[in-house]
Amino acid sequence: MIEANNPNLTSWLEVPSNHDFPIQNIPFGIFSTSELSARTGVAIGGYVIDLSALYKTGLLSDLPFEEVDFTSNTLNSIINRGKSATTSLRNRLSELLNSETPDLRDSDSFRSKCVIDMSSVTMHMPIHVGDYTDCYSSEDHARNVGKMFRDPENALLPNWKHMPVAYHGRASSIVVSGTPIRRPNGQLKPSETEPPIYGPSRLLDFELEMAFITHPGKPLGNPISTSEADDYIFGMVLFNDWSARDIQKWEYVPLGPFLGKNFASSISPWIVTLDALEPYRVSGPNQTPQVLPYLEYEGAAHYDIDLEVEISTPEGESKVVCNSNFKHMYWNMRQQLAHHTVNGCNIRGGDMIASGTISGPEEGSFGSMLEISWKGTKPLSMPDGTERRFINDGDTVTMRGSQTSDSKVRIGFGEVSGKLLPAL
Amino acid sequence: MIEANNPNLTSWLEVPSNHDFPIQNIPFGIFSTSELSARTGVAIGGYVIDLSALYKTGLLSDLPFEEVDFTSNTLNSIINRGKSATTSLRNRLSELLNSETPDLRDSDSFRSKCVIDMSSVTMHMPIHVGDYTDCYSSEDHARNVGKMFRDPENALLPNWKHMPVAYHGRASSIVVSGTPIRRPNGQLKPSETEPPIYGPSRLLDFELEMAFITHPGKPLGNPISTSEADDYIFGMVLFNDWSARDIQKWEYVPLGPFLGKNFASSISPWIVTLDALEPYRVSGPNQTPQVLPYLEYEGAAHYDIDLEVEISTPEGESKVVCNSNFKHMYWNMRQQLAHHTVNGCNIRGGDMIASGTISGPEEGSFGSMLEISWKGTKPLSMPDGTERRFINDGDTVTMRGSQTSDSKVRIGFGEVSGKLLPAL
Repeated sequence: MIEANNPNLTSWLEVPSNHDFPIQNIPFGIFSTSELSARTGVAIGGYVIDLSALYKTGLLSDLPFEEVDFTSNTLNSIINRGKSATTSLRNRLSELLNSETPDLRDSDSFRSKCVIDMSSVTMHMPIHVGDYTDCYSSEDHARNVGKMFRDPENALLPNWKHMPVAYHGRASSIVVSGTPIRRPNGQLKPSETEPPIYGPSRLLDFELEMAFITHPGKPLGNPISTSEADDYIFGMVLFNDWSARDIQKWEYVPLGPFLGKNFASSISPWIVTLDALEPYRVSGPNQTPQVLPYLEYEGAAHYDIDLEVEISTPEGESKVVCNSNFKHMYWNMRQQLAHHTVNGCNIRGGDMIASGTISGPEEGSFGSMLEISWKGTKPLSMPDGTERRFINDGDTVTMRGSQTSDSKVRIGFGEVSGKLLPAL
Repeated sequence: MIEANNPNLTSWLEVPSNHDFPIQNIPFGIFSTSELSARTGVAIGGYVIDLSALYKTGLLSDLPFEEVDFTSNTLNSIINRGKSATTSLRNRLSELLNSETPDLRDSDSFRSKCVIDMSSVTMHMPIHVGDYTDCYSSEDHARNVGKMFRDPENALLPNWKHMPVAYHGRASSIVVSGTPIRRPNGQLKPSETEPPIYGPSRLLDFELEMAFITHPGKPLGNPISTSEADDYIFGMVLFNDWSARDIQKWEYVPLGPFLGKNFASSISPWIVTLDALEPYRVSGPNQTPQVLPYLEYEGAAHYDIDLEVEISTPEGESKVVCNSNFKHMYWNMRQQLAHHTVNGCNIRGGDMIASGTISGPEEGSFGSMLEISWKGTKPLSMPDGTERRFINDGDTVTMRGSQTSDSKVRIGFGEVSGKLLPAL
């Protein structure tokens, strides 16, 4: 274990017990305040460390970065320096924030410039997303969809267990947590026999996902193997893949989801590094049939991350509607990245690859309203007595995630939240 | 007609008759030379005008641009200034290059800095592509594919005549003409009963397409109407959507094409502005059934652009295998953009939206080997006696396009060309 992950580390900055952002986490984001323009930072407890100010102290000057990397309003510059650079940066930050290290701790001047109360910051999109890909890697989700829309006896399509099926999504409409989401208009086909109509989606859904963000990959034409994959993954966020089921259903044959998805996706603002998640790797499911050699991998490559989804009504009554876990994925990130690049497709720093809906095996762990309400046949009761088959105008959907299997350390993701506005 | 499109205009720079780039065209690109780093330019005849040098003369200084727009190594900055700015720039360039205008014509100093022989330049990707979308808008292509793979009596899927079906593609692997293309490896399923295998694609194809490049659109949540669409389209390029038919066939149900497409797409280096194409608008097909109101449009919104595809063997023997025309599209660009944004999906400056394969109604006008060889059942004879069902290693595929309906003016696109290298 690298020292930055040592569960016994403590910081001179106070971190409440069971906080998402202990010194073992140090997630990266882009923040602004009423005085400071958007810039890079890391979170620890209820504080944000301004990396551009920290760089000016000289305490990062021997690392493979330049000042412009930290004054940028996206993390792409930092991420583009590559995995060994970002690992060295996290290690240095861990050292500087450690209770034992005096450099920042004992300098009023440095601290006043670098340490900012989180209550005073506004969070922004952490990266400029180059390309965004969405996978379909949860077996329970794929089975649920197959049972509902195809043959319950043959719920999985023939290719599903041979490859991490994926498709390209829209990068421009990925927004940071807190951004309101507008219910989309589009073509709907409510009647089998009548022509399509135009109007607001009636079946507006969330999808509980996580996404990873890449370092720059290899030149076009050169694949990344499963054993190399971790070196190209910077970190992860929570991801809400908002979906308009009725738009999607009418449009998606034969070329896949388009307007049913690309009106918006929401992400959590703090990127948790793969380095911080390293101690919490777990084994994945036994994959049968045997995968092709380019999808084989060694060791534990899944991650134990508890996930939950909460719906809040416009009046503020809330209900947790899903408890799932990222370890339920059939295909892991190494396999997703190896598959994505097996044909030579190139990845760039700041590309985003989402997991697909993360459903668990039993009711209560399903990651979309489509599955929770079983196509609307099992409405969900809210605390105020109303029912939900899908998401109503004015509802807020919030997803949270954290590694909690180690009771001494909680590596959390914060949250991704979005309120649904009525259609134009 | 705006003056820059006047067919009687001539330039003080010599332009051979029937050249793709007369003064009525003035396409935009990114070039470098052995002395000059990559920067913006426009083409006229056999010359490139260095816009960064031209800006320094002061002859562009009253236009809504800054020097950094012209020294950039992509056209995004220029495009991000919006349609009225780029129109004013093209108009000024037309004026400065006009035989009657002395400012550049009579200044040896200005000319020596701004006018570069095209034989000395290297062309680069003209834009940083934000998001790339591929449509499926040729009825003849969709019918051909439906006849081959589905029901010849019901070749079009139910949604096809109600919307310009589209899907998201990969932006990172779009390359400029001249870039060699590596035959992809991937999962193939040659036998219905045996498991998939790993190996090089055996059915490597081109797709003859055109693509348009957007100006910045409206904020997320706000659609662009068909009547507004032209204001958000900067210009067009030729587009080769390289396709691995066997990878695509096994992967694409249910989420659409992915690795069968994203290993590479090639574009022509010079962006022809929509302004330059304005005089060559023609009416499109009668659309039946009636489209929904948001897809209705007024006037002529198709473009008469002759297209051809040539295959050259490694030994240099060439054959034109397709003659098609962009006017064959069922759905036009205004409809594509209105559909793409009807749900509030936002577009950014430098996004690229491709047409889908542009097939005409008869043999000889089909825009892919899949259709030309009818799934490999009708091999094509090459001049050297060899046959082609799909593209062989070492073959070069070249696409050309130009407006030729007005015999006085040829608005050409140059070409997009790529040589296929063997798989790794």
